[in-house]
Amino acid sequence: MPFVNIYLHVGTTPEFRSAVADSIHQAMLDTIDIVPDDRFELVHEYQPENFHQDPAFFGIERSNERSVFIQLVINARPAEQKQNLYRRIVENLASAPGVRKEDVFIGVVEVARENWWAYARIVDDTGVDARAAQTS
Amino acid sequence: MPFVNIYLHVGTTPEFRSAVADSIHQAMLDTIDIVPDDRFELVHEYQPENFHQDPAFFGIERSNERSVFIQLVINARPAEQKQNLYRRIVENLASAPGVRKEDVFIGVVEVARENWWAYARIVDDTGVDARAAQTS
Amino acid sequence: MPFVNIYLHVGTTPEFRSAVADSIHQAMLDTIDIVPDDRFELVHEYQPENFHQDPAFFGIERSNERSVFIQLVINARPAEQKQNLYRRIVENLASAPGVRKEDVFIGVVEVARENWWAYARIVDDTGVDARAAQTS
Repeated sequence: MPFVNIYLHVGTTPEFRSAVADSIHQAMLDTIDIVPDDRFELVHEYQPENFHQDPAFFGIERSNERSVFIQLVINARPAEQKQNLYRRIVENLASAPGVRKEDVFIGVVEVARENWWAYARIVDDTGVDARAAQTS
Repeated sequence: MPFVNIYLHVGTTPEFRSAVADSIHQAMLDTIDIVPDDRFELVHEYQPENFHQDPAFFGIERSNERSVFIQLVINARPAEQKQNLYRRIVENLASAPGVRKEDVFIGVVEVARENWWAYARIVDDTGVDARAAQTS
Repeated sequence: MPFVNIYLHVGTTPEFRSAVADSIHQAMLDTIDIVPDDRFELVHEYQPENFHQDPAFFGIERSNERSVFIQLVINARPAEQKQNLYRRIVENLASAPGVRKEDVFIGVVEVARENWWAYARIVDDTGVDARAAQTS
């Protein structure tokens, strides 16, 4: 049950923002073994004055008004899986809606499996069903 | 010192949103041993296009426009206490302001005790007083 | 690669909000060994009805409309370094833009070093360069 927060500047189209959310969700489906309906994503929009980053990071220019910050809260996973996830997110965002890789910033927060609650997951007395045990 | 973030759609009343915040705070008082004035809660409102979830999760329909996502950042606690907390939050929200249990999503992020700062907690040279040692 | 979220009431000037962000960034430079361009900060503004705290915490009055909540997501660090960071943030905010220490609330979320991605950090096949190895 990942919880995804997407932060970008005001001024994009709803289609652009939906494509960002879709691309991130698809990347999680492809690399960290979640199920399609396990989707909880929010998009937050900022005035330029409230969105702070350096014009260059590690010598690479970042285009401020098109930057996308992403925070993923997920169950703990091996480092390799997280690397695959990052790579896929960046690839997907480059394809649609077309975000430069230089403009992506991703941070992951890992939590324990029991740190989530959604009604649909409680299907027996233990609060966890077989499907929940297999996925995130 | 929990930090609570509440995410919901635009279009609710201020009374509705305050009742959501009150219900969550009361649930924490009842189940995870915080003190009444230890309250730091924010409510975030979203346009439908920025609030993404599947219309059904684990086969249960979620009513998009009335859904409430909740993120709780708290000191680490036993799994059982977290289960009690979830149950109480959902019960309280059902009572007031009247949120369907199917529309609640909760995620918890756990941190170390020293990961908080508020002026009032510093009452001696160690930065922690007796009350802080007993509670969250 | 800290990720900083700053939460305050609507009604401040852009200069005030930028000074808050600058002061927090400078505090991190001074106490937790990040580099100047490692800056990813967002400022979030709230209507009073969406910003909930007790009028007093541990017996100290908090001025609701001038309060600043801060969430820092950083790589794990020793408790002492975090204490230094809190102290410096509060000092800096008192200097500019002039936030009372009683009105600051800080929460830290710690993550593993591999929980970040930004394009500029990938400079060889391992995904980490010498500079990244030295800093956060």
